[in-house]
Amino acid sequence: MKKVGIVMGSDSDLPTVRKALDTLAGFGVPTEVHIYSAHRTPTQAQQFSASARDNGFGVLICAAGMAAHLAGAVAANTTLPVIGIPIKSSNLGGMEALLSTVQMPSGIPVATVAIDGAVNAALLAVQILAVSDETLAQKLAQKRQADAKKVLEKNAAVEAEFNC
Amino acid sequence: MKKVGIVMGSDSDLPTVRKALDTLAGFGVPTEVHIYSAHRTPTQAQQFSASARDNGFGVLICAAGMAAHLAGAVAANTTLPVIGIPIKSSNLGGMEALLSTVQMPSGIPVATVAIDGAVNAALLAVQILAVSDETLAQKLAQKRQADAKKVLEKNAAVEAEFNC
Amino acid sequence: MKKVGIVMGSDSDLPTVRKALDTLAGFGVPTEVHIYSAHRTPTQAQQFSASARDNGFGVLICAAGMAAHLAGAVAANTTLPVIGIPIKSSNLGGMEALLSTVQMPSGIPVATVAIDGAVNAALLAVQILAVSDETLAQKLAQKRQADAKKVLEKNAAVEAEFNC
Amino acid sequence: MKKVGIVMGSDSDLPTVRKALDTLAGFGVPTEVHIYSAHRTPTQAQQFSASARDNGFGVLICAAGMAAHLAGAVAANTTLPVIGIPIKSSNLGGMEALLSTVQMPSGIPVATVAIDGAVNAALLAVQILAVSDETLAQKLAQKRQADAKKVLEKNAAVEAEFNC
Amino acid sequence: MKKVGIVMGSDSDLPTVRKALDTLAGFGVPTEVHIYSAHRTPTQAQQFSASARDNGFGVLICAAGMAAHLAGAVAANTTLPVIGIPIKSSNLGGMEALLSTVQMPSGIPVATVAIDGAVNAALLAVQILAVSDETLAQKLAQKRQADAKKVLEKNAAVEAEFNC
Amino acid sequence: MKKVGIVMGSDSDLPTVRKALDTLAGFGVPTEVHIYSAHRTPTQAQQFSASARDNGFGVLICAAGMAAHLAGAVAANTTLPVIGIPIKSSNLGGMEALLSTVQMPSGIPVATVAIDGAVNAALLAVQILAVSDETLAQKLAQKRQADAKKVLEKNAAVEAEFNC
Amino acid sequence: MKKVGIVMGSDSDLPTVRKALDTLAGFGVPTEVHIYSAHRTPTQAQQFSASARDNGFGVLICAAGMAAHLAGAVAANTTLPVIGIPIKSSNLGGMEALLSTVQMPSGIPVATVAIDGAVNAALLAVQILAVSDETLAQKLAQKRQADAKKVLEKNAAVEAEFNC
Amino acid sequence: MKKVGIVMGSDSDLPTVRKALDTLAGFGVPTEVHIYSAHRTPTQAQQFSASARDNGFGVLICAAGMAAHLAGAVAANTTLPVIGIPIKSSNLGGMEALLSTVQMPSGIPVATVAIDGAVNAALLAVQILAVSDETLAQKLAQKRQADAKKVLEKNAAVEAEFNC
Repeated sequence: MKKVGIVMGSDSDLPTVRKALDTLAGFGVPTEVHIYSAHRTPTQAQQFSASARDNGFGVLICAAGMAAHLAGAVAANTTLPVIGIPIKSSNLGGMEALLSTVQMPSGIPVATVAIDGAVNAALLAVQILAVSDETLAQKLAQKRQADAKKVLEKNAAVEAEFNC
Repeated sequence: MKKVGIVMGSDSDLPTVRKALDTLAGFGVPTEVHIYSAHRTPTQAQQFSASARDNGFGVLICAAGMAAHLAGAVAANTTLPVIGIPIKSSNLGGMEALLSTVQMPSGIPVATVAIDGAVNAALLAVQILAVSDETLAQKLAQKRQADAKKVLEKNAAVEAEFNC
Repeated sequence: MKKVGIVMGSDSDLPTVRKALDTLAGFGVPTEVHIYSAHRTPTQAQQFSASARDNGFGVLICAAGMAAHLAGAVAANTTLPVIGIPIKSSNLGGMEALLSTVQMPSGIPVATVAIDGAVNAALLAVQILAVSDETLAQKLAQKRQADAKKVLEKNAAVEAEFNC
Repeated sequence: MKKVGIVMGSDSDLPTVRKALDTLAGFGVPTEVHIYSAHRTPTQAQQFSASARDNGFGVLICAAGMAAHLAGAVAANTTLPVIGIPIKSSNLGGMEALLSTVQMPSGIPVATVAIDGAVNAALLAVQILAVSDETLAQKLAQKRQADAKKVLEKNAAVEAEFNC
Repeated sequence: MKKVGIVMGSDSDLPTVRKALDTLAGFGVPTEVHIYSAHRTPTQAQQFSASARDNGFGVLICAAGMAAHLAGAVAANTTLPVIGIPIKSSNLGGMEALLSTVQMPSGIPVATVAIDGAVNAALLAVQILAVSDETLAQKLAQKRQADAKKVLEKNAAVEAEFNC
Repeated sequence: MKKVGIVMGSDSDLPTVRKALDTLAGFGVPTEVHIYSAHRTPTQAQQFSASARDNGFGVLICAAGMAAHLAGAVAANTTLPVIGIPIKSSNLGGMEALLSTVQMPSGIPVATVAIDGAVNAALLAVQILAVSDETLAQKLAQKRQADAKKVLEKNAAVEAEFNC
Repeated sequence: MKKVGIVMGSDSDLPTVRKALDTLAGFGVPTEVHIYSAHRTPTQAQQFSASARDNGFGVLICAAGMAAHLAGAVAANTTLPVIGIPIKSSNLGGMEALLSTVQMPSGIPVATVAIDGAVNAALLAVQILAVSDETLAQKLAQKRQADAKKVLEKNAAVEAEFNC
Repeated sequence: MKKVGIVMGSDSDLPTVRKALDTLAGFGVPTEVHIYSAHRTPTQAQQFSASARDNGFGVLICAAGMAAHLAGAVAANTTLPVIGIPIKSSNLGGMEALLSTVQMPSGIPVATVAIDGAVNAALLAVQILAVSDETLAQKLAQKRQADAKKVLEKNAAVEAEFNC
């Protein structure tokens, strides 16, 4: 199976990124994690991205906050699908990272998920790999059912408490 | 090759969606287009989404404006990758469609591109199919080179005009 | 009397929703509460909405945060009045839920109240039922007078403290 | 049948309000229209609101732009359901009218629809009256089916053009 | 000397309003404080405003949060200068109160100060009274000098610490 | 009678400022107009402000766009009431001018009106002068009545057209 | 004298950039213009930036819209001062370009000017070169005086028209 | 070497400003710190700015919050490069300070950095001085390498923990 590469711009993004790692591990998807800053270590970010397809990656996930150029910088150097996680900032709530990540110019898409949306970034990566992987697709269907079951159980509890 | 399904919420979205169709056609990717409204024809949207994987789709693209629930409604019924195009509105510039599309709850991702970003939505769909399709991957690389060449030619023209 | 149905997208919305329940209970209005997610349990949300009028409901209240598609998804399946409560998020203050709830396309209205405005959602539901229920209308008038009296008492306290 | 009262803050709101009137006329709902400004003719706005229930109104619709206090000022003087239409402004796109209309304090709800959402305001008024009026409820169901049919026809046209 | 009337929409605004009271007291300006809600006690708000000039008021200060219609409702009933203090909300930071207070329609101005800007509201009231009161004008000049002196002293301390 | 000074930051603000001039002329209030830029002619802006009270001014009105520091710069040099008109910009709709004008630090108030709110700035200036000028106060009351009459006439026309 | 390098992300930015060129030409500062896209020709952007100091540049100006990563991408590869011009977009007014340009992470500053602020970007570049160039500093002082004179002349015209 | 002058509008800005001081000290750049308020001590701010070039300053850094006119007020009185640090506010997250600082009118640039971006303001000042100071330029290059090394070390730690 192709790997999912996760790049974060700073080690302060790790608590959020860890949720993506856990989600991917739950699907048995091989991952690699790196800290490459679009601005402080641009060469490493460039080299990783440019060689990612040849190195067995199928999808890349990038997490960055504030100006949040990382996903775009990675996407500029690969035609693999790049998923961007805008990280919440203390001042503007992550709005600037969201806009920087999603408003990419024509030609270089970044698949953007919600602010701090690490679980969804991982699920989207699995969905992408599952396009040509029936086993993964079945695991995704099972996860959906399990998620739905949890909601239904909570619904049952609420109904029992309030709708007597 | 798996198909790309494009769903728009209203026929007023067609001028934007057409750019996605043209881009996909340029890659020889088979497509299907539909108008399914999350609110006015929810049953059709649901049935299309729930059967999309079995019907040979690999990726779905959804374009919608204002409250823009379409991409989420489709994603709720499939584990295929769903790409959302927020459509610009006359009042708030598309900001409400962007937030409605990207801020999905944990469990149901939507791969969001820029406001009116139909070309990038199509490119992202091709990138997703290309994860397991070497020919498509090569076409993407060629497209990147062609895009870069255009920028370089424009650069040459500007340099010739101004940097004498 | 027709029932008020309250649907929340997640059990994390319960603390806010409880204020609506308490308010409705104060008016003696029968209620039912459910957790139906527009994205994780769309079938249940659809079935509940589509049969709500036949099942004796007069008004539906939906509470959801982030992309907040729930009220719209419910409104798509019923012509009962649907009231939407946008729930505050940790990143954008509930602005995305507000816009997703209120900016509905023509044809499918959602009666939107303030962010976290559960008490007002309940009062609006009572007002709707009271259009054809004189007893409820009188209770609403009494509640208004009681609310006004509380403000007048606080005013008297402030006047006594400061305007000697 | 109870009447729907429509109040606008300025005659410049009439082009938008007219869509509400047309929609209500389509359902055969009796209406009354007035221009009462919350700030320039507050007494008239107050008197109309305070006597609206006794004068046979079932629902009030208020349209106003900028600071947009009208819906709140009307709601302060009646316990009838009050629907607010925020009118688009030339500077801030109607965002200020939306926030002024929807962010009402606890105790005095305003059922807010989208910026310039006059058709939905009218539909919501009909939905409210239809809670206790089976004939209106059937008309609403027919309107939904007619709207859906239009989308399906447009879908058929798009499918015929693109999915050969 | 004419009085300054301070009206707040809720007793929760008192901590902010108190700063205005302290500032006015420092200038020896007579004040009156009231809690009148534009929505919960509209009659009292109207009566106070309409009779304010005859009752010896020169300036009115209104503090309100969220939809924040109070200053506008007061201004609609008097031609005295009305100063609006938008109160910070927990969800949108006071932005909605600011826009509701400042974006008044032509004909009914509200002199708006910063979010939670109670001290400046009081100073503005004093400045207004001082237009025709030389003694107050001198006190304002002294206050300015005192404020400047405090800044100069802090500057001296910083210079001493850092610019050795 | 004391004069109203109007300062604009650029001659591009004149079309908006002219409405303030016309309004003041309607009240027979003496005015002076100047173009002083807070940034391009700061000395002139400072000298005008610092001597305004001695030169017979009672109120100053400042109109400026973008960073819009003018009202604050003027207010820093006088204790006269300073009214700020944020001028709409082509990019951000005047939001930046509004925030720059209204969010003044404690000690230096600016009485801010709506974006492009020149008529209200003039009315506010008249209201301030009218605190100690009974004749002006009567003119304001007459203007209010005339404004109300216009609304009532428009209301009558709308009622005649729609409420047959 | 060291050169000023101007890089734009797209030839659509040229009308704005031209104002920077004209301003720099007015000071006799040598310039070079290039179109390098952070995403479409990242290698060229990187190489230009990394060698800019050695190639005789003293300051770099970058103009880009939407996600607007260009200034940051250039700044990542040089320690020369980098000035960023956020270019207005059709959807969000340039707000996303502004935030992407200015909210840079610690370590890699971008000196950001106003949306479409090309003239100021050029002036800032001249100011930077003038820190160690007395002749340029004198030209800047003359330009300031000329700008002030223009304002004073416009002021004189306005005074003559209105303050008779 | 020319000095860097740091001006803050209030002593409450000192915790942020201190980071700029520490950064400048790390480069051995001589500094001076002052508290000058654009509004409370405008004369001191004006005099400092107007004489800054003659007093040996090469760059000025201004930190201010809310309306944040300080950087513009300083820039109006000098042609030295002026760097603006918008300080975060408790209500609007620093957005108003950012817009007030960056949206300067044509003719008077302010080099704006991120909200609370004191370290970058200092680095930008050093970069400006380094245009004509080879030793400083080398220190900047070393700082970049040191910063990159830190990221690489953190990357190594993350790789060791997760990519076994």
